[in-house]
Amino acid sequence: MNKTNDKILIIGLGLIGGSYAMGLTKCGYKVYACDKDKNTIAYAKSNGYIVDGTETLTKDFLSQFDRIIFSLYPNTFKEYIEKYVKYIKEGSIITDTTGIKESIVYDIQNILSSKAEFIPAHPMAGKEVYGIKNADSAIFENANYIITPTDKNTDLGIAFAREIGEALHFRNISILSPKEHDEMIAFLSQLTHCIAVSLMTCKDSKKLVDYTGDSFRDLTRIANINENMWTELFLMNKSSLLKEIDIFINKMSELRSFISDGDDENIKKMMRISTEHRKFFNK
Amino acid sequence: MNKTNDKILIIGLGLIGGSYAMGLTKCGYKVYACDKDKNTIAYAKSNGYIVDGTETLTKDFLSQFDRIIFSLYPNTFKEYIEKYVKYIKEGSIITDTTGIKESIVYDIQNILSSKAEFIPAHPMAGKEVYGIKNADSAIFENANYIITPTDKNTDLGIAFAREIGEALHFRNISILSPKEHDEMIAFLSQLTHCIAVSLMTCKDSKKLVDYTGDSFRDLTRIANINENMWTELFLMNKSSLLKEIDIFINKMSELRSFISDGDDENIKKMMRISTEHRKFFNK
Repeated sequence: MNKTNDKILIIGLGLIGGSYAMGLTKCGYKVYACDKDKNTIAYAKSNGYIVDGTETLTKDFLSQFDRIIFSLYPNTFKEYIEKYVKYIKEGSIITDTTGIKESIVYDIQNILSSKAEFIPAHPMAGKEVYGIKNADSAIFENANYIITPTDKNTDLGIAFAREIGEALHFRNISILSPKEHDEMIAFLSQLTHCIAVSLMTCKDSKKLVDYTGDSFRDLTRIANINENMWTELFLMNKSSLLKEIDIFINKMSELRSFISDGDDENIKKMMRISTEHRKFFNK
Repeated sequence: MNKTNDKILIIGLGLIGGSYAMGLTKCGYKVYACDKDKNTIAYAKSNGYIVDGTETLTKDFLSQFDRIIFSLYPNTFKEYIEKYVKYIKEGSIITDTTGIKESIVYDIQNILSSKAEFIPAHPMAGKEVYGIKNADSAIFENANYIITPTDKNTDLGIAFAREIGEALHFRNISILSPKEHDEMIAFLSQLTHCIAVSLMTCKDSKKLVDYTGDSFRDLTRIANINENMWTELFLMNKSSLLKEIDIFINKMSELRSFISDGDDENIKKMMRISTEHRKFFNK
């Protein structure tokens, strides 16, 4: 793997930004960071995840970097770009880790204009815990990494995003349009979180703990959810997500009717299709 | 643990019956079995899970046992009891592994009448694979075991069911009424299977495999489903299951409205409750 530049700035050292710092440092990059919390910077530095870091972005600091990775909530990411575009070095290449694309990608590329190239990427990995102290670059190893270029991206930009995905040892690197990405994520990730949250809030289930099997535990693992981040992600992908929720509720209502009618043939048919589809997802 | 009798007959050597045989033999019981498939009997015998077995239940064979465990689909279980009650030894204690209770327990106790005691039990464990070749008594070690006695059960009967649960090293042994059991199972197990099957049949998801994260995989693990067994279980617990499906769809529709309205406060509130509830279920 060729490094286009081995000096990289990561903005936002949460679970994902912190895990990026850890993994890129392991891979030989000189990683610097910005985070609003000085304890986070100190922790990352003392654990060797970064060379150095800052709480506040200045022109002098930013002028050292022409490779930047933003790992912030979507709205904060946009605010940072608006605020700091003037300090960003001419000709920089910027990527991100944001979980939705269409509602931010074009805006950010417009703000940056010809000053810097923004090549969007999404590491489809996570944990149900947060912050730098839970950082673990191993979470990327069995995960997917999606690059979502627009017409404005260059081969050099796409190559940089791919370089990061390879450095972090993602299992699979793909390219999708921002729109395709958001439709896919609405179904595979956002809908599943909606299901887990709905199931977990159906009733006061505390008294059921003693009877719980693995299926309920597996289904609700992601019901432990960062409400600030996911609310932003849901609302910034509203139309795709609502479409998927409707498809799911309709399908579930269909199964409900079969059960209500005692229609065993149609229940079995649906289960056979389910088993057939699930086979593709065995790791 | 006192063994009320160390000679036990298991009827039905599927995944659960086979795992019972394996675990009870390990614990020092002399386990015999009946299964309609002679290869299953041969496999269980050659692997040391059973002392011996038969394909057909005769009066002579049954007369050897006063401790019997039925591990069959619910309807087959009832058919076997009807067919073989005449051969069952007077004063026997019978238990089972069936996943629904109310719709079979009273019928079976009535058929057996005063000849034998039926003490119902449900091992809440499983795998997404079937048959004796996947038997593994370790599946019980972190699982729950529910005994569902009725007015007709005696202390001796309940002690036998408990003895089996202890011999198989279940993490937790509880007592519920058949009705409480079925309501609990409708929510914790049957509803989760309905969700997984509905999600998995929403669309032709084969092309999405490359982008799938762990949350979708976890949610759909149980979408690989034994359609004959689960259709029986659903239909034999119809009223409880329909009630839980309705509660879930209503909750999901509520979340859908919040998203549609851009009501971030209510989305966050629901997610906070979700996170709070989920904490109880961390192992």
